[in-house]
Amino acid sequence: LSEVTRIARVDADDVSVRGHSLCTELIGHTSFSSLLFLLVVGRLPAAPQAAMVDACLVALAEHGLTPSAIAARMTVTGAPESVQGAVAAGLLGVGDVFAGTMEGCAALLDEIVAGADPAELAGSRRAARSPVPGFGHPQHKPDDPRAARLLALADAHGVSGRHVAALRSLSVAVDGAWGRHLTINVTGAIAAILRDCDVPAEILRGFAVVSRAAGLVGHVREEQERPAMRALWERAEREIPYEEPERSRK
Amino acid sequence: LSEVTRIARVDADDVSVRGHSLCTELIGHTSFSSLLFLLVVGRLPAAPQAAMVDACLVALAEHGLTPSAIAARMTVTGAPESVQGAVAAGLLGVGDVFAGTMEGCAALLDEIVAGADPAELAGSRRAARSPVPGFGHPQHKPDDPRAARLLALADAHGVSGRHVAALRSLSVAVDGAWGRHLTINVTGAIAAILRDCDVPAEILRGFAVVSRAAGLVGHVREEQERPAMRALWERAEREIPYEEPERSRK
Amino acid sequence: LSEVTRIARVDADDVSVRGHSLCTELIGHTSFSSLLFLLVVGRLPAAPQAAMVDACLVALAEHGLTPSAIAARMTVTGAPESVQGAVAAGLLGVGDVFAGTMEGCAALLDEIVAGADPAELAGSRRAARSPVPGFGHPQHKPDDPRAARLLALADAHGVSGRHVAALRSLSVAVDGAWGRHLTINVTGAIAAILRDCDVPAEILRGFAVVSRAAGLVGHVREEQERPAMRALWERAEREIPYEEPERSRK
Amino acid sequence: LSEVTRIARVDADDVSVRGHSLCTELIGHTSFSSLLFLLVVGRLPAAPQAAMVDACLVALAEHGLTPSAIAARMTVTGAPESVQGAVAAGLLGVGDVFAGTMEGCAALLDEIVAGADPAELAGSRRAARSPVPGFGHPQHKPDDPRAARLLALADAHGVSGRHVAALRSLSVAVDGAWGRHLTINVTGAIAAILRDCDVPAEILRGFAVVSRAAGLVGHVREEQERPAMRALWERAEREIPYEEPERSRK
Repeated sequence: LSEVTRIARVDADDVSVRGHSLCTELIGHTSFSSLLFLLVVGRLPAAPQAAMVDACLVALAEHGLTPSAIAARMTVTGAPESVQGAVAAGLLGVGDVFAGTMEGCAALLDEIVAGADPAELAGSRRAARSPVPGFGHPQHKPDDPRAARLLALADAHGVSGRHVAALRSLSVAVDGAWGRHLTINVTGAIAAILRDCDVPAEILRGFAVVSRAAGLVGHVREEQERPAMRALWERAEREIPYEEPERSRK
Repeated sequence: LSEVTRIARVDADDVSVRGHSLCTELIGHTSFSSLLFLLVVGRLPAAPQAAMVDACLVALAEHGLTPSAIAARMTVTGAPESVQGAVAAGLLGVGDVFAGTMEGCAALLDEIVAGADPAELAGSRRAARSPVPGFGHPQHKPDDPRAARLLALADAHGVSGRHVAALRSLSVAVDGAWGRHLTINVTGAIAAILRDCDVPAEILRGFAVVSRAAGLVGHVREEQERPAMRALWERAEREIPYEEPERSRK
Repeated sequence: LSEVTRIARVDADDVSVRGHSLCTELIGHTSFSSLLFLLVVGRLPAAPQAAMVDACLVALAEHGLTPSAIAARMTVTGAPESVQGAVAAGLLGVGDVFAGTMEGCAALLDEIVAGADPAELAGSRRAARSPVPGFGHPQHKPDDPRAARLLALADAHGVSGRHVAALRSLSVAVDGAWGRHLTINVTGAIAAILRDCDVPAEILRGFAVVSRAAGLVGHVREEQERPAMRALWERAEREIPYEEPERSRK
Repeated sequence: LSEVTRIARVDADDVSVRGHSLCTELIGHTSFSSLLFLLVVGRLPAAPQAAMVDACLVALAEHGLTPSAIAARMTVTGAPESVQGAVAAGLLGVGDVFAGTMEGCAALLDEIVAGADPAELAGSRRAARSPVPGFGHPQHKPDDPRAARLLALADAHGVSGRHVAALRSLSVAVDGAWGRHLTINVTGAIAAILRDCDVPAEILRGFAVVSRAAGLVGHVREEQERPAMRALWERAEREIPYEEPERSRK
């Protein structure tokens, strides 16, 4: 094969990871968040970037009994032998509805950085009655506190760059187009911050996946200790009743 | 590599599948159930076996809003772009609690076929207060109607052999040991019937996986058309409240 | 909750499945393929449709050591405790590249049925140098024998309707636009046939998922009996060498 | 429902996570590794424990083209729309063969901490010709450098306790029973260190899952940029040939 990998090589006495010795340069010297950045982006982050990657992973990890958490906990109910299967089941729901807004927001920010007018982008979406990815949240009103915290931290660390600036100008434009305040949500903030750290838009979702994996392990552990899903299952069977369909004819 | 596969070879004008031409011998000539049997066991089933494999797949496919169905539907809620991901999430719960009883029951039946005494097997489990895999069902009392139907069909088709006989002798022993009637459940009946068709115990679970995949596709379709999981999610958040833990100290 | 399900209700002595008694009307009376159709479409198929759904499931189940099969077999290598996990891993690859062409082709056929001109559809794709979903196959040249077989069967069963006719007119247009023959491939044929059976385009992929699950169970079984993936893994490590990246600097 | 959760509650202006304010106490104050510990164990780790959890996550994340990495990369080849599906497919292989040795080793260490004799444990396994979980590695000989590095770090941080001591006494006993040196491998070291940090054995695997998720995101990114799996797939098809089985007869 003519293919190569630039990720890792296993030797008897070490593992090379993107040009670094795992055993002498990474373990004990680099945080897990920085290692994730290294693996995906190909270089170690500078300290301020490392702090922000870490903060983004912390911000997304846990949000209560989400559909993902329920899926993971339902799975461990039927397959207690497979912690990895339960976490995987939960991660499968980290998709377009949730993580996709991160990518959609990143695309808008990239357009603005390239010169597009935020007011036009917001206005055309408003006219089409379509949501703006990265804006609005059903539970966090008027503002998503995670987004506010992350953006303040990014400013403090000097990480905020053209994408964060684009997000803020888009926010003004969105509020104008809607005639009321829509919050920048956590996926919008993370999209801007990680883009300012040079994370490619196509793999942004991977950061959500790693982050949410931590939350799911916590839920699987709670379900092992203090099962709640059998009760929810019975509740679903009782409260989502069967409606007899018109009898099918061939 | 010195490895070989005995499953399939792709040619420009056909696919060979375990010695059969896919295009001239299988498509249009063989049922999907029989093809599954061919792929797993290595030969086409005789007609009575084919009928029973089909009946077993039909019997297990659907059982309402199970944890698997809820996991699949929660997943499509977050990741509508990935029907395959939602079905996969549901299948990940087809594990030890459910499908494992099939394998556990098959192991007991194999022991009985090899000469073990059903009364001893049942008595020792009763003494240990451990359940007998393949027996009992929380909803189907006094009898699991799917098991009864499958066993009657297996008799009618002449498929019932030593494993079905072992299951029936075990049933008598279980009722004796417990001092009351425990139903043979659907996984017990399927374990006996598929073992009498020469399906190895280690892959029995694969038949449950294929069968349940059909049910899950139905649930994903219903969730696409008539979403129910957002309401269940809200219900879970409301009715499984957060209990503030004692504050963690470092 | 105000939600309902129209799929199933579990009673002590039966399971109702879309208006049918599982135990007296479905087990032993209906094929697994027809049950899948019932679950997804909401009615039992007529006999010719049932035959074609079955034939489509048979046609797609197995195609050798595909990426899906390799993923499933690699997974059982690391997690032999979880047959369901290995099958799920394989199904996760039944995505846009493969199953998506089914949906893309269905969309084109729906347009043609609604009055669009096949020559225009083919021509604009040719001009854009983009492939036509449902056409072409790297291994099956000049024709995908599975597609030819399925379409002949659909004609013989009288199932071929407006979507199959649209596929054929599109095929003529594609050959014209490309100036050479491109085969109708198996996903194109299945898209047309299942659309003529009233399967909604949004859930077409679910049929691929169920079908491929059977193939994957076969591969997992072979890997249990005759492991091949450790050798392929070693091969991958040896033949996809590590290329030291330029050393990352912070 | 009488069930509760002790993980999180979502309020409009914050998220409570195990008694901590996500926005004012965790984001920007706690590392992602420490958050994982909090979510699973229920309290924030002390600084030395936090350093070791982080080091363990770094040590396990990446090991080249493992079966998991191949499964993830094969999956994104077929389903590029679903980064989460590819990572999930890879995680499904983090099972008994790999992560299970962590749990098996933890069980042995718990026995030794409770008073069992390491020489007896090692001797009985040697007599049964069964491996000792946490010992031996096909590539890292004579010693797994990751294990050595982690154990030295745990000593330096004062985290090494009764489980690390048990691992070392078991290592002496293993070498004695085998009559040659077997390395403590990375899963053995992590099992001992995380048990000394009070991580329950039943959820140890969850740490491997989060760690490996980072490696898999890196592989998915590389496959997006520089695809290698199509070549490996072709190689598999060519080098694992089809062996025609004896023709099946009904």
